[in-house]
Amino acid sequence: MSLPDSVRLFEMSPRDGLQNEPGTLVPTATKIALIERLADAGMTHIEAASFVSPRWVPQMGDASDVMTGIQRKEGVTYSALTPNLKGLESAIAARVEEVAVFAAASEAFSHKNINCTIAQSLERFEPVMARASEAGVRVRGYVSCVLGCPYEGDIDPERVAEVAKALWELGCYEISLGDTIGVGTPLKAKRMLDAVNRQIPMNQLAVHFHDTYGQAIANLYAALEEGISVVDASTAGLGGCPYAQGASGNVATEDVLYLLEGLGINTGIDLQAVIDTGYWITAELGRTPGSRVAQAKGRSHT
Amino acid sequence: MSLPDSVRLFEMSPRDGLQNEPGTLVPTATKIALIERLADAGMTHIEAASFVSPRWVPQMGDASDVMTGIQRKEGVTYSALTPNLKGLESAIAARVEEVAVFAAASEAFSHKNINCTIAQSLERFEPVMARASEAGVRVRGYVSCVLGCPYEGDIDPERVAEVAKALWELGCYEISLGDTIGVGTPLKAKRMLDAVNRQIPMNQLAVHFHDTYGQAIANLYAALEEGISVVDASTAGLGGCPYAQGASGNVATEDVLYLLEGLGINTGIDLQAVIDTGYWITAELGRTPGSRVAQAKGRSHT
Repeated sequence: MSLPDSVRLFEMSPRDGLQNEPGTLVPTATKIALIERLADAGMTHIEAASFVSPRWVPQMGDASDVMTGIQRKEGVTYSALTPNLKGLESAIAARVEEVAVFAAASEAFSHKNINCTIAQSLERFEPVMARASEAGVRVRGYVSCVLGCPYEGDIDPERVAEVAKALWELGCYEISLGDTIGVGTPLKAKRMLDAVNRQIPMNQLAVHFHDTYGQAIANLYAALEEGISVVDASTAGLGGCPYAQGASGNVATEDVLYLLEGLGINTGIDLQAVIDTGYWITAELGRTPGSRVAQAKGRSHT
Repeated sequence: MSLPDSVRLFEMSPRDGLQNEPGTLVPTATKIALIERLADAGMTHIEAASFVSPRWVPQMGDASDVMTGIQRKEGVTYSALTPNLKGLESAIAARVEEVAVFAAASEAFSHKNINCTIAQSLERFEPVMARASEAGVRVRGYVSCVLGCPYEGDIDPERVAEVAKALWELGCYEISLGDTIGVGTPLKAKRMLDAVNRQIPMNQLAVHFHDTYGQAIANLYAALEEGISVVDASTAGLGGCPYAQGASGNVATEDVLYLLEGLGINTGIDLQAVIDTGYWITAELGRTPGSRVAQAKGRSHT
């Protein structure tokens, strides 16, 4: 059991973060500034937008403007969520180089969230994968509810492995395993990763933890012990938990970076620059960063 | 590397918690009610008061009234901090069965906090230990700054081991290792525990983590992997961090219990009863619980 030398961080705040901030329509220029600041802090993978119907997710209605508006930086991948072919075509038109699709490990969650079975959701991705491949766009896959479901409770790790494998066999280059409601603890995370790793090599897996129950950093440490080296996180913990009022959602990038630095794991990212970006974007949203590291260290005095 | 089957939780909120809540003098009756509620939730070790000069720590000026006022419960140890012989005599008079003394692993912290060298602080405990032994009172030892000091920065694990060993040789039955400013990360915690464990058996060590940088649960998981089975925590995360404004201090008991339950480790404590107690005491203090588990689960609706 040895920890990785370096970790690739996948930044979620512009998409998974802002999409789940209640009651605010963030101006396009602010989103663009956020993405550019994150890239300047050293981030190499930023999920920048979601190409979904603005009827369902009004917060992401300006996805094309965001993607075409950002000053692209060499070495940075700007990705977008594309749940269907229409979204993918818009993403391709906006010069998106990488997209993402998602499926749930819980049948009940799939029904409530996207109104279809898991199998149906996977079927619908087939034309998306084919078109992405044709256009030379890489596809990342998300599996949600990997450590628990708000409707079904515990989720069998074998079920997670099946869904992850299905996305992987469809052609996703990397599968991000999401504890959508943040209920996991370290041994559950390890058992789930073991089950998935019997189907997919560890270096093609990522973890996406939520800190709703304060366990995300511990789960992440356990995942690193298992050999995980790609980690999703959201600056300032942007993106509340829609299933528990007032509770936190995405693990804060600042807290993840502090852990990784303490473990001697390289990310290439400037923690203080991320903290400052977190203070700036949360001020725009009228609140303070949901990161303990940000609260303890404070912003730069410049 | 296997996790313990059960963990003994050492509850800190009435002392380390309330002592560090800024600006409030909690009524004696409220303290007594808190301690009794914690015992009713299944806690077996509660640090209930501190016998120090009220000139220095006005929040603890009613220590004797608290200790004599509580309805003692069979099987529960109510301990108190006694930094000197005078405090110990008052504690004995108040029928305290267990006391605690403390030393820093950082010379600078010792100077700033108690105005003497580490060696002087240890010397001063000699008569305290002798008198406690004579009175049949057990003594617990705290070492502070074991993973970092606000003045010195990093602390050599060997230095921690020396101070811990000195307290142990003075007669402390258990040494609680405190990350006073919450700066530690899991590998640093492991290295520190390894160093101390070369001097003292693991089953006579406890960990006392602060969550200032959001790492306490991860550090705790790493400590459990090392064989630690006694854990200090504070309901609702009571006790802010005096060294970083607005930042959290003690790790919340609720978050610790959630971790332990998820790992299948028994504590004998009712998590929901602790959550409810946390909501009650923080309402008395005019705030909300500093526990993510409490925020996510909410209080009982009865």
